[in-house]
Amino acid sequence: MSDIEIPESHPRYQSLLTRHRIEEGVEKGITSQQGLIAQGRGEAFDYLLGERTIPSADDAARVAAAHLLLATHPVVSVNGNVAALCPAEIVELANTVDADIEVNLFNRTDERMQAIVDHLREHGADEVKGLTADGRIPGIDHERAKVDADGIGSADVVVVPLEDGDRAEALGAMDKTEIVVDLNPMSRSARVATVPIVDNIVRAVPNITAHARELADASREELEAIVADFDADAALADAERVIRSGSDGSE
Amino acid sequence: MSDIEIPESHPRYQSLLTRHRIEEGVEKGITSQQGLIAQGRGEAFDYLLGERTIPSADDAARVAAAHLLLATHPVVSVNGNVAALCPAEIVELANTVDADIEVNLFNRTDERMQAIVDHLREHGADEVKGLTADGRIPGIDHERAKVDADGIGSADVVVVPLEDGDRAEALGAMDKTEIVVDLNPMSRSARVATVPIVDNIVRAVPNITAHARELADASREELEAIVADFDADAALADAERVIRSGSDGSE
Repeated sequence: MSDIEIPESHPRYQSLLTRHRIEEGVEKGITSQQGLIAQGRGEAFDYLLGERTIPSADDAARVAAAHLLLATHPVVSVNGNVAALCPAEIVELANTVDADIEVNLFNRTDERMQAIVDHLREHGADEVKGLTADGRIPGIDHERAKVDADGIGSADVVVVPLEDGDRAEALGAMDKTEIVVDLNPMSRSARVATVPIVDNIVRAVPNITAHARELADASREELEAIVADFDADAALADAERVIRSGSDGSE
Repeated sequence: MSDIEIPESHPRYQSLLTRHRIEEGVEKGITSQQGLIAQGRGEAFDYLLGERTIPSADDAARVAAAHLLLATHPVVSVNGNVAALCPAEIVELANTVDADIEVNLFNRTDERMQAIVDHLREHGADEVKGLTADGRIPGIDHERAKVDADGIGSADVVVVPLEDGDRAEALGAMDKTEIVVDLNPMSRSARVATVPIVDNIVRAVPNITAHARELADASREELEAIVADFDADAALADAERVIRSGSDGSE
């Protein structure tokens, strides 16, 4: 986390670091124009959320960790903004829960795919899927539907941070357990997720990893109980309430 | 308003048109990376606001029109996003209240300045200030402070849509009447404005023009009464309440 010359004590450190990484993402051909606009939307919701992880989002991150530990074949899906904002944190999460990493773009070009794969490798990723694209998500148009057959195509649990609504719906219809990270609790992606985490991905991804480490020795029964207890609608309603009221009830 | 092939009856027409204009702004070298992120922030706040002009913002637009009609030397300041989003509407406002138009960029380069001046001329602007840059706003660093001495430098009323917080503060300290259009009622720009209009500029700019036309025959006394009645803090508090609660009290 030392890639900008701003002291960590600066009150806007996290925000400035995030902005810096997004700009670097544009320079590297990772972040698209749509990605910059999406980043701005996220900033506004995070501002209203108080730029912190609210308790219900922390709970959801723990549930996500339990799902990932129970999974047979978990995959973390990475798009341009995710790669730009938290590449090392994604690699750490994937290593911790033994998940595949797959690059999966809404605006897919060979150049962007390769730039993102390279960026993830620079940040410690070993194998990165997504370039084969020999599988399809049913129900959405051809270009948007491309996935690796031995990656997202055959995954039972997928983490899709910042996913487009159409694809989040189509993945859900494939009976996959879908973990979505999205700052807008009213977005379609958040609404169709098995586990919606309403939080900034720069906070949420390391938080899922931390919970996965804590739960590493938990039994399947304990993990299944954590999963069974979760109420996605209640988590979304809570996040919307915090955004609307500015208070999480713990203050 | 016929620059995209989408019927005006489409429920997302305004949103799609806005997005299209911003993308065109990038192609023309008008909109910066920061501008795209700012556009996204605005989209999120507008979504929460219900993508409509709330009554307190309509009142503020009327007050802005009164200020502009009372002014000795009004200037409309234009940055990259403003030029991309509503060039013709800015020209119409300036013509209606007999104001100068001045291009004023946070990230100033000769290329962007010229591209924006050209874009405004294509949309009907006659004289566009900003290229001379022989004046300074005191209290901010040299590059950010550049204005035309016979433009913003000597204006008594300035319209600064989507202005940066530091500069909005510095302009306020110069004792200018500052009309700010900003979708975030908590932003510093909105908070230092004489008249903050919490609304999308694609709605707010034509709305100020419409109010100026309605008030064209009003006496100075009537205009001064409109100005005197306005409470900026109350307008901001109302906008924040609508954003947080989702209701403007009129429903």
